[in-house]
Amino acid sequence: MKIAIDAMGGDYGPLITIQAVSRVLDSNKFIDFELFGNFEKAKPFMKKFQLISSSRINFIHTEEVVESNDRPSLALRVKKQSSMRLAIDSIKEKKNNACVSAGNTGALLGIARFVLKTLPGVSKPAICGVLPGINKVTRVLDLGANIDCSAQDLRSFAIMGSVLSKSTGGILRPTVGLLNIGEEEVKGNDIIKATADLLAAGDLNYCGFVEGDDIFKGTVDVIVCDGFVGNVALKAGEGAAKLLSGIAREEFSKNIFTKLSYLFAKNVTSNLKNRVDHRNYNGASLLGLRGTVVKSHGSADSISFQKAIMVAVNEVSQKVPEVIGAQLEE
Amino acid sequence: MKIAIDAMGGDYGPLITIQAVSRVLDSNKFIDFELFGNFEKAKPFMKKFQLISSSRINFIHTEEVVESNDRPSLALRVKKQSSMRLAIDSIKEKKNNACVSAGNTGALLGIARFVLKTLPGVSKPAICGVLPGINKVTRVLDLGANIDCSAQDLRSFAIMGSVLSKSTGGILRPTVGLLNIGEEEVKGNDIIKATADLLAAGDLNYCGFVEGDDIFKGTVDVIVCDGFVGNVALKAGEGAAKLLSGIAREEFSKNIFTKLSYLFAKNVTSNLKNRVDHRNYNGASLLGLRGTVVKSHGSADSISFQKAIMVAVNEVSQKVPEVIGAQLEE
Repeated sequence: MKIAIDAMGGDYGPLITIQAVSRVLDSNKFIDFELFGNFEKAKPFMKKFQLISSSRINFIHTEEVVESNDRPSLALRVKKQSSMRLAIDSIKEKKNNACVSAGNTGALLGIARFVLKTLPGVSKPAICGVLPGINKVTRVLDLGANIDCSAQDLRSFAIMGSVLSKSTGGILRPTVGLLNIGEEEVKGNDIIKATADLLAAGDLNYCGFVEGDDIFKGTVDVIVCDGFVGNVALKAGEGAAKLLSGIAREEFSKNIFTKLSYLFAKNVTSNLKNRVDHRNYNGASLLGLRGTVVKSHGSADSISFQKAIMVAVNEVSQKVPEVIGAQLEE
Repeated sequence: MKIAIDAMGGDYGPLITIQAVSRVLDSNKFIDFELFGNFEKAKPFMKKFQLISSSRINFIHTEEVVESNDRPSLALRVKKQSSMRLAIDSIKEKKNNACVSAGNTGALLGIARFVLKTLPGVSKPAICGVLPGINKVTRVLDLGANIDCSAQDLRSFAIMGSVLSKSTGGILRPTVGLLNIGEEEVKGNDIIKATADLLAAGDLNYCGFVEGDDIFKGTVDVIVCDGFVGNVALKAGEGAAKLLSGIAREEFSKNIFTKLSYLFAKNVTSNLKNRVDHRNYNGASLLGLRGTVVKSHGSADSISFQKAIMVAVNEVSQKVPEVIGAQLEE
């Protein structure tokens, strides 16, 4: 298997992408890489991790980069030699099996959609992320690719999320919830109601409406919503978690006694941190495309970017796009 | 000042509403109450808190109650003698200055809107809640009253939230953010864009787009969004907070050492809990009506319900509906 890496994407570019690649090479014999980016900028890190002469890495040099504030349309039309574009082109050309990038989400989505095209029956690709719950994770989509979604779109998200949960999450018959603002039948707008009817009539393990707090409860395996709501919910959850950890930090550093108690509680707090560390959940899947594309968080470190690579590896070995295509045809 | 209390609303009814009333009576000389509910059910608590013969409480007996799963339309059409309805009627009849209920949100909103009517220039009332941030609170609206909102609706929410933040939050010139999924101008749907234009052209202290995590950051004093997004964001935040506290509980109770460290950290964790305790933020304001109505969380305890009463008291003393009405006319 060969993975295309946009080596320049994200806040740190080659500083973290190359180290992540090096780690994956060390731990997985059957994964090779094609890296896209500015070789001059990548060179120090390629040297540091002794990858310059590795037969398992092919480096494609390009000087064009999609910036984090580039408009997606501009990135698509103008930056045809960017590391991101070349990486996705290589999937289309079947040179690589999947592409991982920590770059501009809108541009990645726009380019992937334009170059790879959507699967038959999919009008909109969706971004699917894995979020932690107390006992199990939940896959939530769409996390921001599409602001306006029809009932048909939401239904296809439900199918795609179920396939992902089954094939890469190992859930035999994933439960699916539709995000709403109340569990009662009366609530929700017309699109939500129409989607509920479609899902109830279909073959998925549909469980009805869920609410915002179900995202972090592990109530269901897959939660479906439009990209506006999904993105706000994801970030509101992150915000609440940051607030709590910020206040905890303040309280623990108040005086000598609280600082001492922090030392005693350190094991607990580091376990806690680890269990909800967003780095462990890095790697959002762009679903509904004729190819595997994984988006890493822009601020990912190398451990986190490594996780995103492994998400892509998993999807390739489970043939996720092919299975989604087959499911949608049914 | 006289406050109408729906004594039957919420998960615990008179068990908590009467105790909350008793506390407010003890600490505030100038606040009297009219309670609406089933006197037989309230009697034990009225006795317990020695309120039976209090000259500062008037109890209006009724046997009808709006249940938490009643459809709002049914509650409005059929339950014309419910404790909730009679409490709101009493505002319309100027017998009381404000109404507080922990009952069915949809019914409360529907009845309040029907009985009290909206202020001139307001087509939709909104639910506004106070959410904690690290250094300051943020008022967010709408938290669930309206699924579909026009740019004009969102603009009136911004005005109403600003008035509330100024008059009851003491913020001289409240900053206002519009919830979106990216700070760039290019993102957001047509309604969001039109709202941004309206707000930029108006007199409010409008600061542009904010994202979901800004809700718990205290980035701005007021965040405006439609009720679907607001409700999901609020609950996602709650869900994330519950996940963290749940995992912390698990980690602290793992073994004898972690239990010991919990004892050492107890001061810190209880301060932390206190600072984000949702009970301290209880009492969401129904804004845009010709009268003051405050919704308490359904699962509120007496301390929490007391907070909701004080929210209503504050709004009455600051003449919030009148100020909003005047602002909207400008």
